[in-house]
Amino acid sequence: MRIRVINPNTSESMTQTIKTSAQAAAAPDVVIEAVTPTMGPASIEGHYDEALAVPGVLTEVARGVEEGADGFVLACFGDPGMDAARELAQGRPVIGIAQAGMHVAALAARGFAVVTTLSRTAGRAWDLARGYGFGDRCVEVLACEVPVLAVDSAAAMVADLAKEALTHEGVEAIVLGCAGMAEMAARVTAEVHAPVIDGVGAAVGLVETMVRIGVGGCARGEYAHPLPKRYTGLLEGFSIPQG
Amino acid sequence: MRIRVINPNTSESMTQTIKTSAQAAAAPDVVIEAVTPTMGPASIEGHYDEALAVPGVLTEVARGVEEGADGFVLACFGDPGMDAARELAQGRPVIGIAQAGMHVAALAARGFAVVTTLSRTAGRAWDLARGYGFGDRCVEVLACEVPVLAVDSAAAMVADLAKEALTHEGVEAIVLGCAGMAEMAARVTAEVHAPVIDGVGAAVGLVETMVRIGVGGCARGEYAHPLPKRYTGLLEGFSIPQG
Amino acid sequence: MRIRVINPNTSESMTQTIKTSAQAAAAPDVVIEAVTPTMGPASIEGHYDEALAVPGVLTEVARGVEEGADGFVLACFGDPGMDAARELAQGRPVIGIAQAGMHVAALAARGFAVVTTLSRTAGRAWDLARGYGFGDRCVEVLACEVPVLAVDSAAAMVADLAKEALTHEGVEAIVLGCAGMAEMAARVTAEVHAPVIDGVGAAVGLVETMVRIGVGGCARGEYAHPLPKRYTGLLEGFSIPQG
Amino acid sequence: MRIRVINPNTSESMTQTIKTSAQAAAAPDVVIEAVTPTMGPASIEGHYDEALAVPGVLTEVARGVEEGADGFVLACFGDPGMDAARELAQGRPVIGIAQAGMHVAALAARGFAVVTTLSRTAGRAWDLARGYGFGDRCVEVLACEVPVLAVDSAAAMVADLAKEALTHEGVEAIVLGCAGMAEMAARVTAEVHAPVIDGVGAAVGLVETMVRIGVGGCARGEYAHPLPKRYTGLLEGFSIPQG
Amino acid sequence: MRIRVINPNTSESMTQTIKTSAQAAAAPDVVIEAVTPTMGPASIEGHYDEALAVPGVLTEVARGVEEGADGFVLACFGDPGMDAARELAQGRPVIGIAQAGMHVAALAARGFAVVTTLSRTAGRAWDLARGYGFGDRCVEVLACEVPVLAVDSAAAMVADLAKEALTHEGVEAIVLGCAGMAEMAARVTAEVHAPVIDGVGAAVGLVETMVRIGVGGCARGEYAHPLPKRYTGLLEGFSIPQG
Amino acid sequence: MRIRVINPNTSESMTQTIKTSAQAAAAPDVVIEAVTPTMGPASIEGHYDEALAVPGVLTEVARGVEEGADGFVLACFGDPGMDAARELAQGRPVIGIAQAGMHVAALAARGFAVVTTLSRTAGRAWDLARGYGFGDRCVEVLACEVPVLAVDSAAAMVADLAKEALTHEGVEAIVLGCAGMAEMAARVTAEVHAPVIDGVGAAVGLVETMVRIGVGGCARGEYAHPLPKRYTGLLEGFSIPQG
Repeated sequence: MRIRVINPNTSESMTQTIKTSAQAAAAPDVVIEAVTPTMGPASIEGHYDEALAVPGVLTEVARGVEEGADGFVLACFGDPGMDAARELAQGRPVIGIAQAGMHVAALAARGFAVVTTLSRTAGRAWDLARGYGFGDRCVEVLACEVPVLAVDSAAAMVADLAKEALTHEGVEAIVLGCAGMAEMAARVTAEVHAPVIDGVGAAVGLVETMVRIGVGGCARGEYAHPLPKRYTGLLEGFSIPQG
Repeated sequence: MRIRVINPNTSESMTQTIKTSAQAAAAPDVVIEAVTPTMGPASIEGHYDEALAVPGVLTEVARGVEEGADGFVLACFGDPGMDAARELAQGRPVIGIAQAGMHVAALAARGFAVVTTLSRTAGRAWDLARGYGFGDRCVEVLACEVPVLAVDSAAAMVADLAKEALTHEGVEAIVLGCAGMAEMAARVTAEVHAPVIDGVGAAVGLVETMVRIGVGGCARGEYAHPLPKRYTGLLEGFSIPQG
Repeated sequence: MRIRVINPNTSESMTQTIKTSAQAAAAPDVVIEAVTPTMGPASIEGHYDEALAVPGVLTEVARGVEEGADGFVLACFGDPGMDAARELAQGRPVIGIAQAGMHVAALAARGFAVVTTLSRTAGRAWDLARGYGFGDRCVEVLACEVPVLAVDSAAAMVADLAKEALTHEGVEAIVLGCAGMAEMAARVTAEVHAPVIDGVGAAVGLVETMVRIGVGGCARGEYAHPLPKRYTGLLEGFSIPQG
Repeated sequence: MRIRVINPNTSESMTQTIKTSAQAAAAPDVVIEAVTPTMGPASIEGHYDEALAVPGVLTEVARGVEEGADGFVLACFGDPGMDAARELAQGRPVIGIAQAGMHVAALAARGFAVVTTLSRTAGRAWDLARGYGFGDRCVEVLACEVPVLAVDSAAAMVADLAKEALTHEGVEAIVLGCAGMAEMAARVTAEVHAPVIDGVGAAVGLVETMVRIGVGGCARGEYAHPLPKRYTGLLEGFSIPQG
Repeated sequence: MRIRVINPNTSESMTQTIKTSAQAAAAPDVVIEAVTPTMGPASIEGHYDEALAVPGVLTEVARGVEEGADGFVLACFGDPGMDAARELAQGRPVIGIAQAGMHVAALAARGFAVVTTLSRTAGRAWDLARGYGFGDRCVEVLACEVPVLAVDSAAAMVADLAKEALTHEGVEAIVLGCAGMAEMAARVTAEVHAPVIDGVGAAVGLVETMVRIGVGGCARGEYAHPLPKRYTGLLEGFSIPQG
Repeated sequence: MRIRVINPNTSESMTQTIKTSAQAAAAPDVVIEAVTPTMGPASIEGHYDEALAVPGVLTEVARGVEEGADGFVLACFGDPGMDAARELAQGRPVIGIAQAGMHVAALAARGFAVVTTLSRTAGRAWDLARGYGFGDRCVEVLACEVPVLAVDSAAAMVADLAKEALTHEGVEAIVLGCAGMAEMAARVTAEVHAPVIDGVGAAVGLVETMVRIGVGGCARGEYAHPLPKRYTGLLEGFSIPQG
């Protein structure tokens, strides 16, 4: 089984962090293919960045389908372009790391907190939590206010926030709110003595589960392939040809 | 007051339909500036189209801010790129026509139906309805299965669907689910004897209201201006420079 | 366009405050007609007052319909008698200022706080927020504990409460919770640097929007005209004659 | 224990129906005092009627408190004036028959249907169901379209609607949606072989329960006694004097 | 009328506490039969205890049906085995004390807090609150951390927690979260000046109400008698014979 | 990795069906240990059966912990005893097949239907759906009315129901509602051309995911080990000894 893990930003170093975490979570018969888009923002720290990461993500999904990937992980906590990616994936599973992290947290505990980078991204996390059905289980979103590209060295701050969150009513697990935190799950777990979930590993496991039991995404109706259509200007290359 | 009405697709004919409807709804002291993006899909009929309409929308919002627009209407029923647009709008109101149509429907009646173009777009309509707080009031989404660029000549079908919806428990108003239907609100109203809401006109009124009472969007926290950042590849032009 | 703005209490001074605020929010072609009922409480500070403000409100709605008003604003934050008023308004828009203030806050920001007069009215504010679909977006209701008829001189206290609310998780806009606060929106906005919404101005804008786009309330089913019926005793004058 | 059962309309014949049903439900040591207001509508068939039934209801609650009633039942399915009545009742339980009927239905079954008189009252029933926490359990509201004052002779139609409702997914109990149906519960139960709840009897039991275990309503905060205030015009008599 | 009140744990002393409280709440014509199961845990302080209290509860329900009880109260705040008990009760009301306490609190006040024994039981209280429709009204669950079998002597601590809870936004009534607290309702009420609800008394009143108005539980569909079936091993005696 | 899959009923043939399905879903390095309890009902077809399956389930969980299992699957669609099992599992993942099936359905599609055995079990399915956060996504529960122990030969009926469900608004995936259907997922998928989810395979994948990423259940607070306690009578063996 081959799972393509897409880093939605263009920073190669973060792709390596994500790859390491994804491989650690994969079963022996799973090949992880971690990729970086050829266009888009160096990091995703708000709605503008996230919206403009989507073209690059979609290009990688289309390429992955062509090259025979069995499923996709979108490795940014805003799950950018997930619905559009599903239209391209033609029934292969596409899972975002916020989605995966929250699902696994909901399986592990009654309530969870998200520990993220910048507080300006908390609104997106809440929208996703509500959309996935976890509006009640997501108790709070805490930010360490460290930029995405520096967060891999902020494990101590993340652990402190996690510890604080676990003292709040109803918080029994921690979801790491950035792909850049992927490698710190074990360390933070050891410090806080509670489930700490890295969405990258969680997403790999969920895609694997779906592939093994033959449950792809839905490839009809809402998620059917995009209709043939002409795109213009800078985005001309995204046109969908007839047939 | 100058309101910039952005048609998120690249079809100039639809921009004209939207402009006519927006002007009819505007107060005497309001100038409507209807614009078409220079990049993106010819029409928006799914998540892929919608995601890829966003770069063009954002370019127009940035231009509008520069040219002194007082507020923005995003004239596609998927409200594409609204959160990102708000980051650029620096406190000026940005309203989508799904958002506006549903708000006005909620003011006019207990429950409403959305009549839209293709059924594959219904999922997006439901996501928006729930996100705006109208998950209970939106009773159903019905599709006439006419493509977006042909829907302006499908008023009879739209009226029939609206009539049918109004026989269903809890449906007391109709929201037109496509900017291409903007000019048919009066005609459908006359046929169905119930409130029929064109989101374009509704959005113009809501932006106007906000500008007159000095309530913009929130320009801090989540909706602060995007952080300085380098974009690469095809999207290099979207980089946010320092300072 | 003529909008009748009804002050549900009998204090003429508050009607003047409301009128000033309504006029400031109206487009050039809108005439504001602010009226005071001939019966009811001097101010509305609880459920009893609010319930007994309704007969006076209904009398003014009936008179407004007769005199050709195009729409109605109910200018008390409890939106007293709104459903009954809609039965009388025969399809003309009827908007309460809590409803309007909350709708505009939901358009402007992710979450809001209501700053009101007496804490005993907070329950009503919550009921309205939930009923309008904003149970999640209304984060808190704070009271300055100043009586309604004195609140116009309490702008400093209101600003302080607004500032405090804006430090709370999820509060990004302030809804002024009393018509007596109508004139202080600009001042409080200037102090708190966030959207501050006066429901009176907001309601004028929403009624205007609805009239311009030809969307009245629903005049059939639930909101059809009251059935012919004999009233007795003190309320005999409210009888609805045959035909 | 003395329970005052208030018929919110002015039709003495309906007060007798209510009284019979209330007495049948009362324990041996409970005295039922059924009363008719001296002002208001002959029947309640919409929001206007209901709003204008409130002054008469409040007069009876005030009289009941003075005369030593231990608790109150508001015997119209719209629960008119309940919040205001609680302010007057100074801690004595005040229960509406919609509230009581829905609570008992929720105790008896997973989901219920309301069978009511006119369909124009269904909106009010839904608002109450949602407000009481039973938005999910109330599956539907069906109307026999018989006026309130004639419904006592429509038991066969009510039974037919109840039977139909019980064939719908999730409906396992029937709440009778009008005090005028109070005496038909046993007959309809016998026909439909499922729980059929008359709100009048249910409300008597709930008030009794609360009185026996010393749990009144809350007499502080929101439901504290109305503040001293001058009322003018027709409603002058509702003024609340100082002290 | 005979109401069987089942103490789900095997501690006879707690059965006596429950019996006293139940009798104080019963009308003169009601006989309270308080029973202790012959198997199960000495107290219920977690999910394991609660799950294993169910066989004993079901044995007592079966015996009660055979001996002609008119209805059942399950006197542990986790409402253990309620759905299964309803299948055995063949239409007789079965009410748990958490269910009853929360229903009466919802009738008495807008929001309530539960004061319970150990914090590890709070999750169960929240599940029940949400399941009964009171997820919004249940504001918090506070634990005194006194074991169930010692809690009858901890009234002062319970009163202190109740007082604290009543200072929190939205808390206007207290539900006692353990049958072992049944006798302290009056004392705590006197100290906190707000409604304090003992679920045992509340449940007796609700069962009484249902019996008097002829509304049992639903004895068809989901709650029909268990199907004939062979049980093996230790639980062989729970087999349901044919016919 | 060793995953213990517990069949909550005592029918060995069903354990074999479950084992086959679990093994097909497992990664190469996972050992499936399928076990049958020594006590309890031959099949689970209602609340009584389910409640009385719990003692046998708990015995198997305790044995699995002792024998070094890494995680547990509860292979009955009612997820019997899950909370209690978690207290025993001391941090190892415990996943029920309803929980797993619904989670994977939510990952695969916007909305799903459950196809189950007897309609009397639908209530339990709804309770679980709501509890897991999927109350909106679970569109309907359809029953084939075939007993659990015969359902393995009813694949054609299940496929027909699935096909019917997929014609209903919002249903885009099917969750098989009984462990006895585990082996028919591929066949039904082939017939209905949409995702069909067997909860057994789904649960194996979710447990695997959690074990691989080091996220167990929460072993503190609510899910800490049961307190030492004496059990009496038939259940004496379930006593929890000191220390």
